[in-house]
Amino acid sequence: MKFSIQKDYLVQSVQDVMKAISSRTTIPILTGIKIVVSDEGVTLTGSDSDVSIESFIPKEDEDKHIVDVEKEGSIVLPARFFSEIVKKLPKETVEIEVQNNFSTVIRSGKAEFNLNGLDAEEYPQLPQIEEENMFSVPTDLIKNMIRQTVFAVSTSETRPILTGVNWKLEDGELTCIATDSHRLALRKAKIETTNQEKYSIVIPGKSLNEFSKILDDSSELVDIVITENQVLFKTKHLLFFSRLLDGNYPDTSRLIPDDSKTDVVLNVKEFLQSIDRASLLAREGRNNVVKLSTMPEGIIEISSNSPEIGKVSEEVQSKSVDGEDLKISFSAKYMLDALKALEGSEIKINFTGAMRPFVIRTLDDDSMLQLILPVRTY
Amino acid sequence: MKFSIQKDYLVQSVQDVMKAISSRTTIPILTGIKIVVSDEGVTLTGSDSDVSIESFIPKEDEDKHIVDVEKEGSIVLPARFFSEIVKKLPKETVEIEVQNNFSTVIRSGKAEFNLNGLDAEEYPQLPQIEEENMFSVPTDLIKNMIRQTVFAVSTSETRPILTGVNWKLEDGELTCIATDSHRLALRKAKIETTNQEKYSIVIPGKSLNEFSKILDDSSELVDIVITENQVLFKTKHLLFFSRLLDGNYPDTSRLIPDDSKTDVVLNVKEFLQSIDRASLLAREGRNNVVKLSTMPEGIIEISSNSPEIGKVSEEVQSKSVDGEDLKISFSAKYMLDALKALEGSEIKINFTGAMRPFVIRTLDDDSMLQLILPVRTY
Repeated sequence: MKFSIQKDYLVQSVQDVMKAISSRTTIPILTGIKIVVSDEGVTLTGSDSDVSIESFIPKEDEDKHIVDVEKEGSIVLPARFFSEIVKKLPKETVEIEVQNNFSTVIRSGKAEFNLNGLDAEEYPQLPQIEEENMFSVPTDLIKNMIRQTVFAVSTSETRPILTGVNWKLEDGELTCIATDSHRLALRKAKIETTNQEKYSIVIPGKSLNEFSKILDDSSELVDIVITENQVLFKTKHLLFFSRLLDGNYPDTSRLIPDDSKTDVVLNVKEFLQSIDRASLLAREGRNNVVKLSTMPEGIIEISSNSPEIGKVSEEVQSKSVDGEDLKISFSAKYMLDALKALEGSEIKINFTGAMRPFVIRTLDDDSMLQLILPVRTY
Repeated sequence: MKFSIQKDYLVQSVQDVMKAISSRTTIPILTGIKIVVSDEGVTLTGSDSDVSIESFIPKEDEDKHIVDVEKEGSIVLPARFFSEIVKKLPKETVEIEVQNNFSTVIRSGKAEFNLNGLDAEEYPQLPQIEEENMFSVPTDLIKNMIRQTVFAVSTSETRPILTGVNWKLEDGELTCIATDSHRLALRKAKIETTNQEKYSIVIPGKSLNEFSKILDDSSELVDIVITENQVLFKTKHLLFFSRLLDGNYPDTSRLIPDDSKTDVVLNVKEFLQSIDRASLLAREGRNNVVKLSTMPEGIIEISSNSPEIGKVSEEVQSKSVDGEDLKISFSAKYMLDALKALEGSEIKINFTGAMRPFVIRTLDDDSMLQLILPVRTY
């Protein structure tokens, strides 16, 4: 194997596949990056067996010459060293050549590195995926759908299925749902699909977080291919594979109340800042709990009390309060997460009593919803 | 005690005194910030008993009204909560009032915090310092002198005196020296002084690091007052006290060689980058050791070898090499620290053999010097 390549393309590509590589893997060869050089260009692969990322660098990109292949071949190089080395090379062009015993020379300007590589034949095969069940979503939309739901997955392994996000496709609508059984986040959107099949899969939250970091904010389409135990995201030069979680995701539709006893409309920014201030003292307590009380003339009082340190209370002027008076306590952290996930400048909260879950939505937008279970404090 | 104050001044002042406060103190009242309100303004104090910082906020600053004093008094408030609270207050003005039992109200807009305070009478007194032995140094110069030496102090407590920087004042010249016995950094400068006394003190490296963070890059003078066991730095609205280290600092002058057998002149940036690349593999080894060899035609070879991972070598074109041929090994980390501390674009290295300390200076500038002991590798 021998080729030369433009450094900035190599650096970007290495950085992308590094996102799949874990330093804590028990399979030694997975601490490496696989490099395959063919007549078309260079393919890099990183994997931790749950997630695999394949990045392709073509020989030419929009008439710009990127790769010169002198001899095809493949090698696995230690990921951490290889990524640090390529970032710090002195010149714009890098030459990489495999010599005897997988020893690999990396040359740039007058700097010459020799890395001990491994046989690429030993590297695990990526899953073979039939492109039968496929749909497409614009990059910026999928990034938003992930951001607005993934934070609500469970971090505990007691119910492994809840560490993932449930993606459901039905009637041309994609719905993403995450819950840790104390709160729930839901986002849906109409999408382009070629067939009318229904899917319901559960993608590990960790995989979605990593995938989201690779995405830019463009409106280019991401192709999504679903199989029994894998999902594959395809962008222009990148393949992102993730295993799916086994098991049935709970039916969450009955958790979301239809009725409402108290409706509050608030400015997101003012409300978020007052919860943030109340949580300064609340987070010393056990559950980071703050209290919300309706007051006369549309005023909402946010308060919190930590006997050892002190207390805080603040009045927020709502846009409107309709229905019964209410005193309710909830986790400041869950509320802050929910408010940061929603879009728009005004939100509507529907309460159905102090001990029932409540629902937060952007005003006049039903495509996303945040649900929080209150905390019993008396 | 009752006063109102412009939030941005309070935030800045709290941030400054927080630098002295440690969460790991064994003296409970030192987890607090002392606030004293007098007819002149507001004084904040933070301390960990080694370092104490006092920040004064005057009632007016350049015709801008900052503080309104309604009732003089004092209180100690929990530092971590108080600093987070003031940062997040909603309005530009903050009102602070001590009520019964040291309970303190902090009001801004419609937000109201109640913090449990402590009696300011219980707060330790700051050292009383006679302003007899004083000299002055511009802020930007003192900041540079600290930066160029403090990194070389010892991090080990086996010889506590080496965890400090030796400041010597003699004949109107201030010399700062730090060494961990493997390398040494020295910087000197002419300064303004009113008397002709000689001092030699040792200031803890930790104190200088904290002090340096508070300094801006202005050319305003910092007054420096020295007593037997304390140093006091005075800026416009800030007093910074540090205890001094006990004991005699070793005489380092005989460590610095006068003669030279090999003189090399190099471009700092090229040399630094090649050492940085070589250290990518070197730091896997025990001592982060790289090797420098003189080659024909003024070429310097930098190399490193980590049998398990690989090796690296690079040729750097020097400006000039005079004297004997040389092969020498040293810590890449010490070399990088030294090169980052020096100023200018070209440096001169004077070697006196493979096993003797060598000296790095900015070309044509004798005010600073970095010395490194080589490592025996064979």
